[in-house]
Amino acid sequence: MAEESLQLYDTTLRDGSQQEGMVLTVDDKLAVARHLDALGVGFIEGGWPGAIPRDTEFFHRAQTELTLDNALLAAFGATRRPGIPVSTDPQVRALLAAGAPVITLVGKSHTGHVQRALRTTLAENLAMIGSTVRHLVHAGRRVFLDAEHYFDGHRLNRDYALAVVRTAAEAGAEAVVLCDTNGGSLPDEVHEIVADTIAMTGAPVGIHCHDDTGCAVANTLAAVDAGAVHVQGTAHGYGERCGNADLFTVIGNLVLKKDRAVIGPAQLAGLAATGHAITELTGIPPRPAAPYVGPAAFTHKAGLHASALRVDPGLYQHTDPERVGNVMRTLVSDMGGRSSVALKARELGYDVEAGSEEVARAAARVKDLESDGYSFESADASFELLLREELAGTPDEPPFEVDSWHVSVARRKDGDVHTEATVRLRLDGAPLAASGSGNGPVNALDRALHQALDPYFPQLAKLELVDYRVRVLTGETGSSAAARVLISYSDGERRWGTVGVDRNTVTASWRALLDAVHYVLLDDVRPGRGASPLATALAG
Amino acid sequence: MAEESLQLYDTTLRDGSQQEGMVLTVDDKLAVARHLDALGVGFIEGGWPGAIPRDTEFFHRAQTELTLDNALLAAFGATRRPGIPVSTDPQVRALLAAGAPVITLVGKSHTGHVQRALRTTLAENLAMIGSTVRHLVHAGRRVFLDAEHYFDGHRLNRDYALAVVRTAAEAGAEAVVLCDTNGGSLPDEVHEIVADTIAMTGAPVGIHCHDDTGCAVANTLAAVDAGAVHVQGTAHGYGERCGNADLFTVIGNLVLKKDRAVIGPAQLAGLAATGHAITELTGIPPRPAAPYVGPAAFTHKAGLHASALRVDPGLYQHTDPERVGNVMRTLVSDMGGRSSVALKARELGYDVEAGSEEVARAAARVKDLESDGYSFESADASFELLLREELAGTPDEPPFEVDSWHVSVARRKDGDVHTEATVRLRLDGAPLAASGSGNGPVNALDRALHQALDPYFPQLAKLELVDYRVRVLTGETGSSAAARVLISYSDGERRWGTVGVDRNTVTASWRALLDAVHYVLLDDVRPGRGASPLATALAG
Repeated sequence: MAEESLQLYDTTLRDGSQQEGMVLTVDDKLAVARHLDALGVGFIEGGWPGAIPRDTEFFHRAQTELTLDNALLAAFGATRRPGIPVSTDPQVRALLAAGAPVITLVGKSHTGHVQRALRTTLAENLAMIGSTVRHLVHAGRRVFLDAEHYFDGHRLNRDYALAVVRTAAEAGAEAVVLCDTNGGSLPDEVHEIVADTIAMTGAPVGIHCHDDTGCAVANTLAAVDAGAVHVQGTAHGYGERCGNADLFTVIGNLVLKKDRAVIGPAQLAGLAATGHAITELTGIPPRPAAPYVGPAAFTHKAGLHASALRVDPGLYQHTDPERVGNVMRTLVSDMGGRSSVALKARELGYDVEAGSEEVARAAARVKDLESDGYSFESADASFELLLREELAGTPDEPPFEVDSWHVSVARRKDGDVHTEATVRLRLDGAPLAASGSGNGPVNALDRALHQALDPYFPQLAKLELVDYRVRVLTGETGSSAAARVLISYSDGERRWGTVGVDRNTVTASWRALLDAVHYVLLDDVRPGRGASPLATALAG
Repeated sequence: MAEESLQLYDTTLRDGSQQEGMVLTVDDKLAVARHLDALGVGFIEGGWPGAIPRDTEFFHRAQTELTLDNALLAAFGATRRPGIPVSTDPQVRALLAAGAPVITLVGKSHTGHVQRALRTTLAENLAMIGSTVRHLVHAGRRVFLDAEHYFDGHRLNRDYALAVVRTAAEAGAEAVVLCDTNGGSLPDEVHEIVADTIAMTGAPVGIHCHDDTGCAVANTLAAVDAGAVHVQGTAHGYGERCGNADLFTVIGNLVLKKDRAVIGPAQLAGLAATGHAITELTGIPPRPAAPYVGPAAFTHKAGLHASALRVDPGLYQHTDPERVGNVMRTLVSDMGGRSSVALKARELGYDVEAGSEEVARAAARVKDLESDGYSFESADASFELLLREELAGTPDEPPFEVDSWHVSVARRKDGDVHTEATVRLRLDGAPLAASGSGNGPVNALDRALHQALDPYFPQLAKLELVDYRVRVLTGETGSSAAARVLISYSDGERRWGTVGVDRNTVTASWRALLDAVHYVLLDDVRPGRGASPLATALAG
């Protein structure tokens, strides 16, 4: 990073937290900051001390609890109020009291916003920007100015927008960050306005984009091309409306496509893991297709080029997923054949050849099952069970047998609904029965299975049903047609899926439930996760 | 559209279906095509007939079941195999047999792919392109060539890439679509290569982008700026890895930002609704932050400018959400809903004003129910029942009461599964019970309801359950969380949907079933379908 002057500025904890559903505790915020610091970001904006109590507390605790190796902490706030001396403004005082080495001020640069939202004069707004920046610089802070609604402002009144940039730069702002606050700009406009601003003011400028046209990343790159020296973004593009520029994508593009070493190779290799860790902290479902860091970012479905993909993955990927700490995955689907089955098998740790008889048998079974309505794309666990059977030549010894089961859902006259399931199994020949109640047939059967089996197979206790989807397969015949049920399980760390198909929806669910149980019970014999003789034989 | 020459080409049903988890039935594909046609897309690529059995069936059924107002159907396929006459290639024959007026061929334009993946000579690849295009044009088809890996190919061997474009254009291809197949390009590169290709070949070119750098939309716009006359994309950016260019975002940007009238204003106002409808068909969770169509695209959290936002929303939005059929929402005040409720009511034939008290009440109820997990996008019938209640001021007189019901699913030791439901109703105070068996709880309850009610309400006999979907609403708690059930019915002519939400999946299904029955029983009093005094009063 020594020779790379472009600044990376993260605002996940401030602008990113405007996203619907994003509620971070102070501990969460501290944890997010540590991840971003480890990634190599230069600045971490922690919030608005003085305005938001949780942010005030964050800065307070950060002084003792947050040790940063790469980043500097930035406090966000506004320029002083109109008509008062900056030294008396409580909001500005709170910014200084936060103790962060960097302060980023938001200032208006759009005449409409100055007059209609801020309700002051254009001259006073400039005075507010100048005096607040000077005051904070004088107090020893590094100061950035976020020029709000800059692009719309420049289009409406270019002279005034440029005056804002000059005022802030002359007062000592380290960079003036041009904000596309409404997110409506396109890359050509951003390039033109950034270039014009630099040419006319000579000020160091930064860029802050929103994704309302789906161009936040491209707009950021356009600004860098035009000479911006500072880029802002958020983890996963979190932010209100369509979100902010996704800093992970921006980093991937800058390093891998633009040769801008904003972070080092080892840090880049932690990109996907950083994304995953932050997802866990925010609890916001990850976007599988997110560039570079998404779990599907390097996932291939097309069976037609599966054979070429095996020979030369570089032909089908724009970059090596390992550089960003991600992995290539392939999906088993009706578009693939033997090669995608072989590819998937190797991904799961089985050392097989696409030309082998076992793979041919597995591919034929996948094809048969798919024509019956199965889909293995989201059901790795069911696929692995099938694959193991074909590799072994016989079905795995079932750890238990199923005699019968029964589910009942009753709605009483008073409106109460009660669901109960009973399963009758056989373990080493001995009968075993248990019941469970739940919020529907699948839930009740799942609980009855746990009730019956957990005492004998403690490893099942961690198995939790986290999602399921039911799909009728042939629309024209409705609920009397076959149903496909996809179930997702978690053991607290990993997540995997199983699939069941049957004319009866509950039977389809039961099949998916059984696959999940079998999968967990076989866990210790799977390659890479244990070293039983069977696994070794299978992998050999 | 008369004066707008830019072609919109959708490939949701082909390249979009490479997305993980996207498994569409033929019925789903037909329904998606109808939505895209109504939106005003010019071309709909339906799949690869001959290579994928489901796609073959799609094109077969499309000939009698799919009437398109705006779009032409395109069949996707490959150039002929190396070393054989095009007329004998079974894959090419299958393309013609599909009967679509348009055929889009994928051809290689990257020398590495020709030699290492296709394993033929550079000259033979050009011959394959030329002869296949000519053959199909001669057979009366409009032909596009998708030049695969074009941007990487152009960087590696510009002369060869240009030769591919010339060959296809000279053979009669209507446009040569430059594909950033690996998705690794950035807008400046796309602009440069598209401009170079047009300058050197004079061919009409199209653009097909993937989102691996988060720039698919910007790359598409860059190509249009450089002179491309045809743009490809998919609904919601579906596609493998990071997805394709999101056609909805591209459309919004072209019409609203670039003054390219690729669809008309009324069609544009259906953009968000099209997005919702397609989401329901694919079952892939929607991305709240999706530009233009996402439920959060115009959602404001910032409390600080809430008052200014109310006074002048234009200051805070890059475009008016109504233009794309979306709504502004704020997370601090309830401004959303009314206009879309009024719009929908009018669409159903009720003459209401957005400012009326009835609409306000209906909008408030919709909002409450949506926060409980309801979704009315695909449930017109449930929405209409709700609307009627608010317009009438009282609930519709229920045609019968529900005392209780019971469903039982039993799997016997011999593997047989039996599902039976019993419903106990009350008709004019008199008890009425009936049973039905089926292939799952919903089917059995549906049959029991028919058994009980058809003798008294013969119009119910035509009511057929044709599809249903179950969706767990909060992934983290799995089958013990609330479930949303969407059910589709048909009376042989029309198709409509209902929705039910409950912690118990069977209860949620029951609610949707009851709505369907109520809807049919009210059929004669609905505006435009009968002329009862009530309907006239409601519509007045």
